[in-house]
Amino acid sequence: MTILLKNCSHIITQDEERKILRNKDIGIEKGRIKEITEQTQNSYDQEIDCSQKIIMPGLVNMHTHAGMSLMRGYSDDKELFSWLEDIWKIEGKLTRKEVKIGTELSILEMIKTGTTTFMDMYFALNDVPKVVEQTGIRAYLGWAVFDPEKSTQKREPIKNAENFAKKHAKKELVKPVIAPHAVYTCPDDLYIKSKEVADKQGILLHTHAAETRKEVFDCIKQKGKRVIEHLDNLEVLDENTSLAHVGWITKKEAETLGKKQVTIAHCPISNMKLATGGVCPYPELKQAGANFTLGTDGPVSNNSLNMLETMKITSLIQKHSRWDPSIATAQEVLDMATRNPSKHLQQETGQITQGKQADIITLNINSIGNTPLYNVVSNIVYSLSISNPIKDVIVNGKITMQQGRMKTMDEEEVRKKAIETSRKLI
Amino acid sequence: MTILLKNCSHIITQDEERKILRNKDIGIEKGRIKEITEQTQNSYDQEIDCSQKIIMPGLVNMHTHAGMSLMRGYSDDKELFSWLEDIWKIEGKLTRKEVKIGTELSILEMIKTGTTTFMDMYFALNDVPKVVEQTGIRAYLGWAVFDPEKSTQKREPIKNAENFAKKHAKKELVKPVIAPHAVYTCPDDLYIKSKEVADKQGILLHTHAAETRKEVFDCIKQKGKRVIEHLDNLEVLDENTSLAHVGWITKKEAETLGKKQVTIAHCPISNMKLATGGVCPYPELKQAGANFTLGTDGPVSNNSLNMLETMKITSLIQKHSRWDPSIATAQEVLDMATRNPSKHLQQETGQITQGKQADIITLNINSIGNTPLYNVVSNIVYSLSISNPIKDVIVNGKITMQQGRMKTMDEEEVRKKAIETSRKLI
Repeated sequence: MTILLKNCSHIITQDEERKILRNKDIGIEKGRIKEITEQTQNSYDQEIDCSQKIIMPGLVNMHTHAGMSLMRGYSDDKELFSWLEDIWKIEGKLTRKEVKIGTELSILEMIKTGTTTFMDMYFALNDVPKVVEQTGIRAYLGWAVFDPEKSTQKREPIKNAENFAKKHAKKELVKPVIAPHAVYTCPDDLYIKSKEVADKQGILLHTHAAETRKEVFDCIKQKGKRVIEHLDNLEVLDENTSLAHVGWITKKEAETLGKKQVTIAHCPISNMKLATGGVCPYPELKQAGANFTLGTDGPVSNNSLNMLETMKITSLIQKHSRWDPSIATAQEVLDMATRNPSKHLQQETGQITQGKQADIITLNINSIGNTPLYNVVSNIVYSLSISNPIKDVIVNGKITMQQGRMKTMDEEEVRKKAIETSRKLI
Repeated sequence: MTILLKNCSHIITQDEERKILRNKDIGIEKGRIKEITEQTQNSYDQEIDCSQKIIMPGLVNMHTHAGMSLMRGYSDDKELFSWLEDIWKIEGKLTRKEVKIGTELSILEMIKTGTTTFMDMYFALNDVPKVVEQTGIRAYLGWAVFDPEKSTQKREPIKNAENFAKKHAKKELVKPVIAPHAVYTCPDDLYIKSKEVADKQGILLHTHAAETRKEVFDCIKQKGKRVIEHLDNLEVLDENTSLAHVGWITKKEAETLGKKQVTIAHCPISNMKLATGGVCPYPELKQAGANFTLGTDGPVSNNSLNMLETMKITSLIQKHSRWDPSIATAQEVLDMATRNPSKHLQQETGQITQGKQADIITLNINSIGNTPLYNVVSNIVYSLSISNPIKDVIVNGKITMQQGRMKTMDEEEVRKKAIETSRKLI
């Protein structure tokens, strides 16, 4: 099926010059952007009137645990360890069935809020690739690798992860990744083995790093090094690795992350809600040349998966923590959620230019948050939280949501199943 | 007109015990809550089915400059003074006409996001009381008092303020307040005169205080005292005074604010966006017994007027700045936006109990952010940003929005006028 986005009011191209085009047509064919023209002469199977819409690349959520949504709101506002106890009590009961249902709910939330790709780390992911394919989102799925002694998984986690990655190696929307959980749950040999598997299979590695002060201090005590130094020492850090959080690092570690071309997934809402204290140092990481992206973290520590919200709070916390309103501009933050992740994910998404993959969202231009409209990028980052402005979502050239209605999921059915299943968990 | 909210799924009463009632009817008559019953025997003019709705008190925005919405998105991400230059350039062109149109747009945004009362400080407010009455929101309007030498207002600002307050003294939805701008724009005699006018007319006083570090240091240099100490010395501080921001105060000043029963309007988003650095010290102010409330600040430094968003970010920044996830719980933050302001405003709003004034909003229970529903207060504060969940808004017993549709404003007309007017400003 070919699609024509007709007479687009504003196209935020996110190209090299960050051009914004007015009143153009976008033709989509075979998953790619075939043409961007004044007025196309070609015919397309389906035409969407975009005269009242802003067109932009889909948002990328670079760190979540989608399967946790059935626990959203179950425990909040507690000291970290008493909170974790609450969560673990429920998490211990989760099987592949609950993980599937929770992930469905999360994907529904992500598509409705304009996310077209997410990076996930969880367990019992057996049925998740099928859900991803059915719903039409793009997902990087990492079966969490743990020290077997600290894990509730059946069989050895690294084996589960390796088998899962092999099984789903050749899919279009699903890309397996290797996801060692963190330095405090994975001994050195597991990180080394994880990196070997990733390199052998040609897939990405995703891990938590330097989220809390305690993690850093424990690492220094046990390994004689800080977390990033330690991961560097294990030869885990390169352009195929992404690290979630990175809230507690030194300037020297930021330089290492830049030199090694590592991707960072900053998760400001989760860090603030759990009060981890540290703020991922965007200015130093940018200076060093690291690839800076954003994540929501899981639905239990956020408690939403809304990347529009995460963009605004990223700008706020970065400005706040340096007493400098010029840090993390609206344009930079939009790059973090679109262009930057695409580089790491080896996708030709994240910008709207001819020939690129068609991961595209449209936003209602006639909303209060878009009034007045001096600067469309400012409005997207700072003003659109008043109501979900996302109208259409296209992933890989296929429509997953049109005019606010899900095309690939039965929204009521997903919510109903989630509610029923959550009732049995507590 | 009498209204029946029939079979309310959840009623967040915000009463003394913070009870949540299930499946009850709420009868509204003459602007007040007449009854909350299992199933009413009385008949009402209008019935709203609330079986799929959460009922709660309307939100109160305790600090904004509603007339500024025509400048939203015009300038962002700049150093404070270069940003102010941009804003002042436009602000100098505003007359009562633009202030009226801007305030209309802001009221539309506030009602749609569940705000039923706002505290405003601006100038050229001549036509605003009429807009407030037509739209049916509750507003506390302060014509900003400035040093005449620093003001662009025609005639003396304190005279403008005094006349405005007298003229609108006896209205139901409009309550005038006296609003000296700040210690760096009002000499001592203006604060003293403002407090005299407020006490004589029996109205509230609202002012900016301790927003920036520079303001505090300049005040120490010029007056030999910190901002709160200085205002206390001028005898401005009592239960009829509210202070916006309060980001840079000492523990001793927090104690003073508690002792004098002052109301604080914490504006976290604006403070973070402008990178003022300080965080309003909620734990110490709570400990001291000050009355803690929330504001969005104006649409230019936020850039939205969404109190749901402000509630979430309040919890996040308070937890973050103390490294303690148990600070500013969802319940406390909801109190800040409902019960707490009502005390100061001398309104019997902010809770849903028999006999209280009917400032009530309803939220859709069937939303993704409400799935699952373990804790309705947690969902409201942390999870509902995915889409505007507000369905109905009732102020003073009258419906301003029903099932998402404005009853008191023509949404398209307001947006159209705002766009046209904003185009002439730049």
